[in-house]
Amino acid sequence: MIDLYTAKTPNGYKVSVTLEELDLPYTYHELDLSALKQKEDWFLKITPNGRIPAIIDRDADDFAIFESGAIMMYLADKAGRLLPTETKARSRVMQWLMFQMGGIGPMMGQANVFYRYHPEKIQPAIDRYQNESRRLFEVLDRRLSENTWLADDYSIADIANWCWVRRHEWSGVSIDGLTHLQRWMQAMAARPACARGVNIPPESEIVSDNERAKEISKFVDT
Amino acid sequence: MIDLYTAKTPNGYKVSVTLEELDLPYTYHELDLSALKQKEDWFLKITPNGRIPAIIDRDADDFAIFESGAIMMYLADKAGRLLPTETKARSRVMQWLMFQMGGIGPMMGQANVFYRYHPEKIQPAIDRYQNESRRLFEVLDRRLSENTWLADDYSIADIANWCWVRRHEWSGVSIDGLTHLQRWMQAMAARPACARGVNIPPESEIVSDNERAKEISKFVDT
Repeated sequence: MIDLYTAKTPNGYKVSVTLEELDLPYTYHELDLSALKQKEDWFLKITPNGRIPAIIDRDADDFAIFESGAIMMYLADKAGRLLPTETKARSRVMQWLMFQMGGIGPMMGQANVFYRYHPEKIQPAIDRYQNESRRLFEVLDRRLSENTWLADDYSIADIANWCWVRRHEWSGVSIDGLTHLQRWMQAMAARPACARGVNIPPESEIVSDNERAKEISKFVDT
Repeated sequence: MIDLYTAKTPNGYKVSVTLEELDLPYTYHELDLSALKQKEDWFLKITPNGRIPAIIDRDADDFAIFESGAIMMYLADKAGRLLPTETKARSRVMQWLMFQMGGIGPMMGQANVFYRYHPEKIQPAIDRYQNESRRLFEVLDRRLSENTWLADDYSIADIANWCWVRRHEWSGVSIDGLTHLQRWMQAMAARPACARGVNIPPESEIVSDNERAKEISKFVDT
């Protein structure tokens, strides 16, 4: 059994979708980020960075793992799926996973901060991160013009990138004209495990994006 | 033989230090970023993102790899060093490597953009990224108070984080009071392979940081 510590964010969904796709049994624990639960001592013992997601693998002597990318690799290797063992195929998954970890995630994250949460409107910062996100979307689109998935077969690289890109409207970044990216997003959204994973934790009530923005504006990136 | 496409940046050094530590034979090719060489068609065939570093492994049917984190994993596995195969030890390296990929790198990178390169001085953006970088340094410091290295033994996670943190002054982020981080930085700098790696490409002439900033201000993150 896996314990998943998470919240309703793209990095949290990366792990819940992975768990759903791999069909690994898990229990989720939602952290109230607005109450800064992720900075409490008990959670810092699980993840020194004080950010979700994190997991504890109860079948492996309570092994604790932080950083969404590292969690996805661990889970895929544990299940023996979505991350090949052959050297080149594995590297291609890692390359597109790193593209999300160092590119799509941070740039869309900063677009969200300056477009949605920042108390002042700083247009050059909004432009910078929206433009860079769009440029990265175009890189994905070119790759997806050559292949159905980002790496050779469906993998954790698709899950990682999709969990961010699907929220492009919230970041104020258009996917207009990126037909291959759109095709891939539809294919991802149609996978039952993906649909289940992005509803963990489930929406207990209708919370509009604007209400959520207000709620989490205090702690983004802290 | 490995062909390394690189420039004098922290992400480039991550790979040159790794190659030096692993004692793998390689040839480096410096790209003139100010001339946007990394956006030319021949280079986009090696890396779809048009950014350095990238490698081609001539001993593996000219296998091309982009994204510094993915390159480091591939090289360490190829050499069988600096990245353990045992599940938990390997995951601990991945967790601290991902901490650099998604945290230290992007946040110090954005600090550099707004502190050094941006045409206008936007103080809230400077503060945001310098403060977040300092917070991440404190996470590293706490970890290094418990262990000599970031994972169990010296690994690619140390190399990745060090190549960024060593440039903390350029980002305008202090390491004052972080005695464990300072101890680790001294230990890293004292390793001959680290010293060699951060001089690839070699400084052909004295170029001050300010001159370099002017030179590269046009293409940061593009």
